[in-house]
Amino acid sequence: MSAVQTAVLGSGSWGTTFAMVMADAGCDVTLWGRDEAVVGQVADERRNTKYLPDVELPAMRATTDAAAALAGASVVVVAIPSQVARTTLEGLREHLEPDAVVVSLMKGIELSTDKRMSQVIAEALDISLDRVVVVSGPNLAKEIAARQPTATVVACPDEGNARRVAEACSNAYFRPYTNSDVVGVELCGAVKNVIALAIGMAQGRGFGWNTTATVITRGLVEITRLGRALGAQAETFAGLAGMGDLVATCASPLSRNHTLGKHVGQGMSLEDALVATGTTAEGVKSSRSVLELAQKHGVDMPITAGVVAVLHEGLSVDEMARVLLSRPQKSESLAE
Amino acid sequence: MSAVQTAVLGSGSWGTTFAMVMADAGCDVTLWGRDEAVVGQVADERRNTKYLPDVELPAMRATTDAAAALAGASVVVVAIPSQVARTTLEGLREHLEPDAVVVSLMKGIELSTDKRMSQVIAEALDISLDRVVVVSGPNLAKEIAARQPTATVVACPDEGNARRVAEACSNAYFRPYTNSDVVGVELCGAVKNVIALAIGMAQGRGFGWNTTATVITRGLVEITRLGRALGAQAETFAGLAGMGDLVATCASPLSRNHTLGKHVGQGMSLEDALVATGTTAEGVKSSRSVLELAQKHGVDMPITAGVVAVLHEGLSVDEMARVLLSRPQKSESLAE
Repeated sequence: MSAVQTAVLGSGSWGTTFAMVMADAGCDVTLWGRDEAVVGQVADERRNTKYLPDVELPAMRATTDAAAALAGASVVVVAIPSQVARTTLEGLREHLEPDAVVVSLMKGIELSTDKRMSQVIAEALDISLDRVVVVSGPNLAKEIAARQPTATVVACPDEGNARRVAEACSNAYFRPYTNSDVVGVELCGAVKNVIALAIGMAQGRGFGWNTTATVITRGLVEITRLGRALGAQAETFAGLAGMGDLVATCASPLSRNHTLGKHVGQGMSLEDALVATGTTAEGVKSSRSVLELAQKHGVDMPITAGVVAVLHEGLSVDEMARVLLSRPQKSESLAE
Repeated sequence: MSAVQTAVLGSGSWGTTFAMVMADAGCDVTLWGRDEAVVGQVADERRNTKYLPDVELPAMRATTDAAAALAGASVVVVAIPSQVARTTLEGLREHLEPDAVVVSLMKGIELSTDKRMSQVIAEALDISLDRVVVVSGPNLAKEIAARQPTATVVACPDEGNARRVAEACSNAYFRPYTNSDVVGVELCGAVKNVIALAIGMAQGRGFGWNTTATVITRGLVEITRLGRALGAQAETFAGLAGMGDLVATCASPLSRNHTLGKHVGQGMSLEDALVATGTTAEGVKSSRSVLELAQKHGVDMPITAGVVAVLHEGLSVDEMARVLLSRPQKSESLAE
């Protein structure tokens, strides 16, 4: 079997890491980016010191010429910022090979349209959703770049395309599992940041592992309820893209949402916490959209409602805990 | 409503903590233990410095007289070491009130019979399984004793008895959820220690959060497969007694199984690791029983098999990781 010709669009931390995963899996990889210094360093020195300082990359090409990167590529991986994905991809549409499968590494929802990233890709490139494959899981880029054992989910409505991508990226440290539930996988990625905020708040308040484990578990129950209402499979949420990603996000000190939640739990105002964190934490915006979506579908999401009340309505974290604990007795079941 | 008269059998860390939970919930609690010094201190000073050094207990009685503790008790909580539960309870059988519900806080399997703790209790006290309620979840005793927000599962085949216990122990920091799947809840408690060993091994080897999250997630998938084969509900494993307890166990530095696994991951032999840990880690014994059970039911449990191979057959942790990652491509689904 000849090497799978692959283009990776985006030379940031996750794009470069995934290019490395595919090259280590035996693919013939070209990395595309806009930053000439980064691209030049990858091509000449096999390094990307801006995003992955300590990593020696395997052999790959790198270019700022998108047409050259896409020519002949049967797998195209997209790792560009969510909110500029549509316009960037529209500009590249004419260079896409007619049989190429497109892989999304992106998380979140397009704010102007409320669409998931696979939908944005299909529209921007004018291809069917069967050709868009979503990769998501407990995938902290720095740990994968250190070639630590990691598993991930490769999801596509077309199982053949999911398997094609899974085979192309599988290597000695990276193990993909296929799944056909794209809605579930993308919903996990969008909603987990809200739960990460709640866990940060609890930890900032000084609560320990019982509380963290409880919020992860009950948080996943409420995400799963929302997912079912939207047509996703419950099993996906208990899997690598759901529970797996949530555990990695909430355990790692690298998550912005988790860190911002901690500041709020320690008593900071949202404004001060945003300044202290230094960047926008995606969950701050999306918590409100998620709650609105839940209300529209009649789904009860008490932890998400608590996060919204703390961030946007002045509820204290202690009061949020009291409200969550004093709800009427319930069965553990998803149905209630 | 008058206070629920409650006897708690066992004045160790978890028994004393649960007595505190029930007293804080408004129950009329008597703590029974064999150690006169501990019992005397609880009765006279509201402290148990041997097991919970920094905690001031709420008002409760304490006694070494089991007949006195059980007289009039409509809820009887059992928190005594698993392997002596049968003989201890047989000696107390005659004092049990005929309408009392019995709550098990115990985990693990009786080694001489391979029975679950609820079965041991029902046999030793000569009562039906409908009167045995199992409590399990992400419940590190020290954190509950600090009155941190915690949730738990209260499981019984008789939903009325589950609700009765849930109402009796619910308080401002302790939130029970009912469940009827006792087999699933008890299986979670018995098998999670094997997964905690695997996670300790990976962390001891220097792997980070992606690997931890992957082992938790795929570990739960294989526990769930075994549970289904034994008649349990898949949903229980994604809940507080499954995922919740596993996250708390694997995140906390207090778990013996996790610590022992770390030593092995750092290159120690099992013998040296047992000495360094200073106690028997329950998962070392149960890993073999779990694997045998899985083989008997034709269930694939690759992580459990890896733990057994490392502990008992001299496989290295690196080799275990290589074997796990090089298995054939799979769907994420439970069914495969």
